[in-house]
Amino acid sequence: MTKSTYVELGEEKTSNQKGNMKRGVSILDFILRLIAIVATLASAIAMGTTDESLPFFTQFVRFRANYDDLPTLRFFVVASAIVSGYLILSLPLSILHIIRSSAGMTRVIFIILDTVMLGLLTAGSSAAASIVYLAHKGNRKANWFAFCQQYNSFCERISGSLIGSFIAIPLFIMLILLSALVLSRR
Amino acid sequence: MTKSTYVELGEEKTSNQKGNMKRGVSILDFILRLIAIVATLASAIAMGTTDESLPFFTQFVRFRANYDDLPTLRFFVVASAIVSGYLILSLPLSILHIIRSSAGMTRVIFIILDTVMLGLLTAGSSAAASIVYLAHKGNRKANWFAFCQQYNSFCERISGSLIGSFIAIPLFIMLILLSALVLSRR
Repeated sequence: MTKSTYVELGEEKTSNQKGNMKRGVSILDFILRLIAIVATLASAIAMGTTDESLPFFTQFVRFRANYDDLPTLRFFVVASAIVSGYLILSLPLSILHIIRSSAGMTRVIFIILDTVMLGLLTAGSSAAASIVYLAHKGNRKANWFAFCQQYNSFCERISGSLIGSFIAIPLFIMLILLSALVLSRR
Repeated sequence: MTKSTYVELGEEKTSNQKGNMKRGVSILDFILRLIAIVATLASAIAMGTTDESLPFFTQFVRFRANYDDLPTLRFFVVASAIVSGYLILSLPLSILHIIRSSAGMTRVIFIILDTVMLGLLTAGSSAAASIVYLAHKGNRKANWFAFCQQYNSFCERISGSLIGSFIAIPLFIMLILLSALVLSRR
């Protein structure tokens, strides 16, 4: 064996290690996406089916609270649904990354789309959170009344459905980190 | 000249082109950061100094609206201030990228920090936007009254100060895109 063969073998080993690292990262990417799909889909469904009728009603008014009464909560449902739809569509490309670890440009595309979706999800969740906060606490100065005393289970439901989205936000940040790491190791 | 010299020259040329591309991207990165600093700082200051006293008052109550009355707007000011502080601190590293275009790991760090700051800024802005929307339109179902009829200039001010932050959000997405592009071309 000549010296140059040793060097080649060494290089092959490093490139193999890099390949394994990339494959591991791609598998982690896939798993994170699956968790994020469950989280955002659960959020969208939980919020989108929230509805409460109070057991008493007058002749003219039937007291009923629906997530649709608050436009911000509707935006939250739409945003969560779009994000979970995007995540489902991104799964094939994520699987492709596991099989062929040398895909460079598609990872840049992933970073951009993930960033945009992170923005959309954060916007929807925090807007909804500010409304849910208002529903719980109200605001004395603005004369906004906390309606959670009346609509108890409605309020619990809209608070709970935020959890999924707020779990998905750090997942997205990790997805972007993973893509950036793979790109930096090329 | 031998063939191998030609090849070397060609490689040098490509690497020079790559270096120029990276330098151009780094300069663009620097300019985008400067614009984002102005935008977020203007937002924070405009919102943080919003205050309106109505020209009439009763014996007990003086009608006065302050951004501080709404906790969400306070969060907006804090978030915008943190983001503009981060952007100012990131300028030296951005200048370093212009001088030494081969910095790889620092770009990964930039992607992560930019992503986190994008999340913080989006959260602050969209939460504030949902409250400003409520101040303008109110919500009949929840009995939340639109107080913008009374506090006219207050409402114009809090609406206007959102603009800067919503300009900075796409700038952040572009910053992340630029860092990812440079990483993919290494």
